[in-house]
Order: sequence, then structure tokens, then C-alpha cells
Amino acid sequence: MADESLFDFLHMEIVSHIYKEQQSSKGEMDNKDRAVCVSVLESMGFRVGQGLIERLTRDSPSFKDELDVMKFVCKEFWTKVFRRQVDNLRTNHQGTYVLQDNKFSLLTQLSSGKQYLDQAPKYLAFSCGVVRGALSNLGMDSVVTAEVSVMPSCKFQVVVQKL
Amino acid sequence: MADESLFDFLHMEIVSHIYKEQQSSKGEMDNKDRAVCVSVLESMGFRVGQGLIERLTRDSPSFKDELDVMKFVCKEFWTKVFRRQVDNLRTNHQGTYVLQDNKFSLLTQLSSGKQYLDQAPKYLAFSCGVVRGALSNLGMDSVVTAEVSVMPSCKFQVVVQKL
Repeated sequence: MADESLFDFLHMEIVSHIYKEQQSSKGEMDNKDRAVCVSVLESMGFRVGQGLIERLTRDSPSFKDELDVMKFVCKEFWTKVFRRQVDNLRTNHQGTYVLQDNKFSLLTQLSSGKQYLDQAPKYLAFSCGVVRGALSNLGMDSVVTAEVSVMPSCKFQVVVQKL
Repeated sequence: MADESLFDFLHMEIVSHIYKEQQSSKGEMDNKDRAVCVSVLESMGFRVGQGLIERLTRDSPSFKDELDVMKFVCKEFWTKVFRRQVDNLRTNHQGTYVLQDNKFSLLTQLSSGKQYLDQAPKYLAFSCGVVRGALSNLGMDSVVTAEVSVMPSCKFQVVVQKL
């Protein structure tokens, strides 16, 4: 669907823009530069996630606990943003959650070649921010990271920050 | 719908990012700086428009003439990207087209206050690029501009470049 790929295309454009602008200002990119790009994309995602979850939960009943929130994110939220449900949700019941998406929408456009595996992080930063922003609006401060083992399968790790 | 607002939120983020980065590098923004921002957004939109129209026209019959292409853009394409059809299409039959959208999706989020009217151009640059990119992929080189009289109503002017 074009209106779905609209977001995918736009996301691709942003990623390449952020990296290009950093590179053009620094010449060769080192790890510090890459970290800057990731953090710019992550904070964009954060604000987008906040906006989306606000609309999504407007008429939702309040959640009874942390796990209840995570389940909502894995189902309703994930479906709206990434067009499918999370395939697997694991938790250690101590504030760490692993959300596995076996066909992550923003990776399916990338070839599954090994060389793209190194590229994956830059296509996940925005999404990590989206998840962190959504959780933050639901009262859960967290650190969200993502890793890809085999494309386009992706694992998001959420570590809730207890006060 | 959250998956619609997903694009809107992301678009807002890009606009504000592009303007912030330009401002931070130049301090006060002058017209030249604003022109740079507009052109960055426009070319992002151009590539997105190319990608989208490619998918959309994959199974479409070929178009019989320029007007036929414009009608497709006003209906199918506009609906996919901006979630409604163009309300009015005018042409001088010499390569100039005016597409009027009385409720342009990327403006509906902005307040209709007068002070936002000056802001409108920065929220239209990406969309002008999208339209130009789509037409370009259909073999029509054009110059696309947009103007807002009363928010959120917007007029896109397409001037086809004859070789």
C-alpha cells in the first residue's frame, strides 16, 4: 500500500539525510559521529511515539500494570506503527522486556545481505525512540535498544528505569 | 488513525529538524537560509514521490495524455498520500495546472491563526516535491509551487516544462 510505504520512504529519506549532513560536516564518519546520528533519529522517534500513543490511548481504559502497558504496545501500538503485532514478548518480571518482531517493517526493504546487517542500527534508531516515547507517555521511563540477528527479524529490549 | 498521523508527525519532525539545523549553523535565519530549508525538504519529497508513484502505477494502464496523468495524480495518488482527492483541477491546456485541496492533510494540524499563514510554506515544500517527483516518474518535468489563502485550503500550481 502506498500510504504505508509513504512512511517507509520518508523514514529512509530522514535516515540518509541525517547521516549525509553529519558526514558533510565532518568528512569521514567515526563512531562518535554515528552516535550523534543515532541520537538525532532516536529523539525524532521519541516525539513521534509520544504523539501517536496520545491519540491511540485517548479512549483506552487505563492500564492495570506495567505488563498490561507492554501488551498494549506489542499489539495495538505495534500494529498501527509497524503494521503487525510483535511476535514474541518476554520479560524477567523485573522491568526488562524483549519484544521480538520477526518481520520488522522498516527492515523488510533492506536486502538481507550480510553487508546490510551493519547498516541495520541506523534504521532502528528512530523506532527505538518511537517505543521509548510511547512508553514515556504511559508513565514508563525506559531505555530501548534493538538488535538484528537475521534480517528482517528484530529484537527490541526495553529496560524500565525504576525511580 | 494513528498510522495516518504517523506520517504527519514524522513530517512535522523533519520540517522542524531541517529548520533547526540550518538555524543553529547560521544563527538568525535570512531568506536565503529559508530557501535552503525549503529546497532540502522539496528534494526529500521528490524522491518519496518517485518511489510512491512507482508502486502505485505498477499495474496501471499507461496514460493517454498529460491531462490523464494529472487526473490520476489528483485522484489515486492524492488519496494515497494526502488521504483525500483534490477538490478542483484547473488547466489552461498549455501545461499549467492548478490543483486545489480545500482541506490539505498536512495543514489541518496547524492552527488557522493568521500567524500560521506565514508558516505554511515550510509545511508545503515536502509536498511540492512529492508531486514533482511523481510527475517526473510519469515523464512530466514540472515546477510545482503551493500557496495557502485560507487554512487549511491549499492550491498547488504545476507548470510542465516543455523541452
